[in-house]
Amino acid sequence: VSFADRLMAAISRRNSRVCVGLDPRVDSLPAPLRERAASGPDEAAAAVREFCCRIVDAVADLAAVVKPQAAFFEALGPAGYAALWDIMAYAAHRGGLPVILDAKRSDIGSTAAAYAEAYFAPPGGLRPVDALTVNAYLGSDGVLPFVEAAGKAGGGIFVLAKTSNPSSGELQDLLVRSGGAERPVFAQMGLLAAEWGQGLVGASGYSSVGAVVGATYPQQLAELRQDLPTVPFLVPGYGAQGGGADDVKPAFDAKGLGAIVNSSRGIIFAYNQEPYRSRFSEDQYAEAAAQATKDMRDDINAALGL
Amino acid sequence: VSFADRLMAAISRRNSRVCVGLDPRVDSLPAPLRERAASGPDEAAAAVREFCCRIVDAVADLAAVVKPQAAFFEALGPAGYAALWDIMAYAAHRGGLPVILDAKRSDIGSTAAAYAEAYFAPPGGLRPVDALTVNAYLGSDGVLPFVEAAGKAGGGIFVLAKTSNPSSGELQDLLVRSGGAERPVFAQMGLLAAEWGQGLVGASGYSSVGAVVGATYPQQLAELRQDLPTVPFLVPGYGAQGGGADDVKPAFDAKGLGAIVNSSRGIIFAYNQEPYRSRFSEDQYAEAAAQATKDMRDDINAALGL
Repeated sequence: VSFADRLMAAISRRNSRVCVGLDPRVDSLPAPLRERAASGPDEAAAAVREFCCRIVDAVADLAAVVKPQAAFFEALGPAGYAALWDIMAYAAHRGGLPVILDAKRSDIGSTAAAYAEAYFAPPGGLRPVDALTVNAYLGSDGVLPFVEAAGKAGGGIFVLAKTSNPSSGELQDLLVRSGGAERPVFAQMGLLAAEWGQGLVGASGYSSVGAVVGATYPQQLAELRQDLPTVPFLVPGYGAQGGGADDVKPAFDAKGLGAIVNSSRGIIFAYNQEPYRSRFSEDQYAEAAAQATKDMRDDINAALGL
Repeated sequence: VSFADRLMAAISRRNSRVCVGLDPRVDSLPAPLRERAASGPDEAAAAVREFCCRIVDAVADLAAVVKPQAAFFEALGPAGYAALWDIMAYAAHRGGLPVILDAKRSDIGSTAAAYAEAYFAPPGGLRPVDALTVNAYLGSDGVLPFVEAAGKAGGGIFVLAKTSNPSSGELQDLLVRSGGAERPVFAQMGLLAAEWGQGLVGASGYSSVGAVVGATYPQQLAELRQDLPTVPFLVPGYGAQGGGADDVKPAFDAKGLGAIVNSSRGIIFAYNQEPYRSRFSEDQYAEAAAQATKDMRDDINAALGL
């Protein structure tokens, strides 16, 4: 079964469009874990491993997917990178929760192939990721090795189109001319994603080459959904970054499929934010994350009339 | 001393503009190491560690810098990622050889800050990298955290402008309009690199925010050198990818400074390519790499009349 089909099935099965972002910033961990993390790199990796596994357990039946962010693991050095792989394996074996590794990798052909191998055909019995985020600044020969390896492994990629950050427009909104038409860079990337995924369209009607489009830009989200009916969207920027349920509505098709919406800090660190902070103690961080996931799931479903 | 100043000093001290790319593809290792690598992930990491350290020893007095490519280490899993850090530390302590980690990282502000911390302020006594390659598709708030962390650590970054691969033009050559002017995306990236590096210009006249510009596009290299007098260039695409000494000449200023030229396969796997294959045995791979570095150094210097 293709990644796109598994993704749509995961959404339908749980009636959830929530992607829980695992961004384990050490400074935001509950005090006991934060203190343990302070005693050295191995302890920091162990603290993050415990934190993420408990979050995964708590959200496994409420989220469609989880998305570890590589940066926060690399920030802990080699021990942190090893913890990332442990957490990905843990999530995959916990209720078949698909794992999207947010690593935004990019390189030229043969090097892109090495990255693709690292995550879609990893060594030593490591479980491949379900999907990987990819930065396509280098053009198709930097992306096709990912598409090929993903296809072979039944995995997928999400190509950055319109990212959720304030300055994404500096490059992504500039108008480019290509093939007689003029459109913004992000729309060009969306079209390329559709083209790269042509051979990987599953029974769901979606391909395994998706696009990243930020919740913070609902207008662009609506345009891209219209123009790219086969491209699944990974939508960051909900919650802490400012996007709400109405903003992400245009990402979905008429059946409420075709997209997943990510929240990281707003879910995993719900324990120290209202309205959860007053309802959950610090050691109930996983319960707080579960409640925040449930609330986000319901908010999005309500906006979609589901 | 700023990264740019250390880079220019490294070039002058050795009269070498060569960047040795450490891309340890397991399939291309000499047979004894390849066989050891086949017996498991830890053994693969050990083989790559030995290979890269011997190459570093052999080229330390002949190259200006070394550039490990993260993809080939990640392809070996967590043990490979740990080997990458070992090799970077080894290179840094071997004759003060600057290390550029080619990881092409990119993300939004607070996540970019985590990547920057990972490499410019790593945990557990790991030595920071001297410079990191960065993909700026996300715009300035995805780049400035790297600039800030690099500045604090005395390090640098190289922003992708015009990459060396055949399809780099798909996005990078498209014309964009910005501030009343029309220019290709790669030139826009070059201008942004100059702007981001304004506060990090050292005594050498170069800033610690450089740009990646491929040897395979000499015309664009010449234009960018003309327009960006303070931006050091990391020039990939020499040798195996087709660029020659005449192609990279326009990357340099009148004093023969301002750029380094990378070769990976052409140097580290010289042992199995002519003219070295007939002169060196397989177990002399490090000596072959040294000779290939020397030849490349001399070819570039000759083209520059140095």
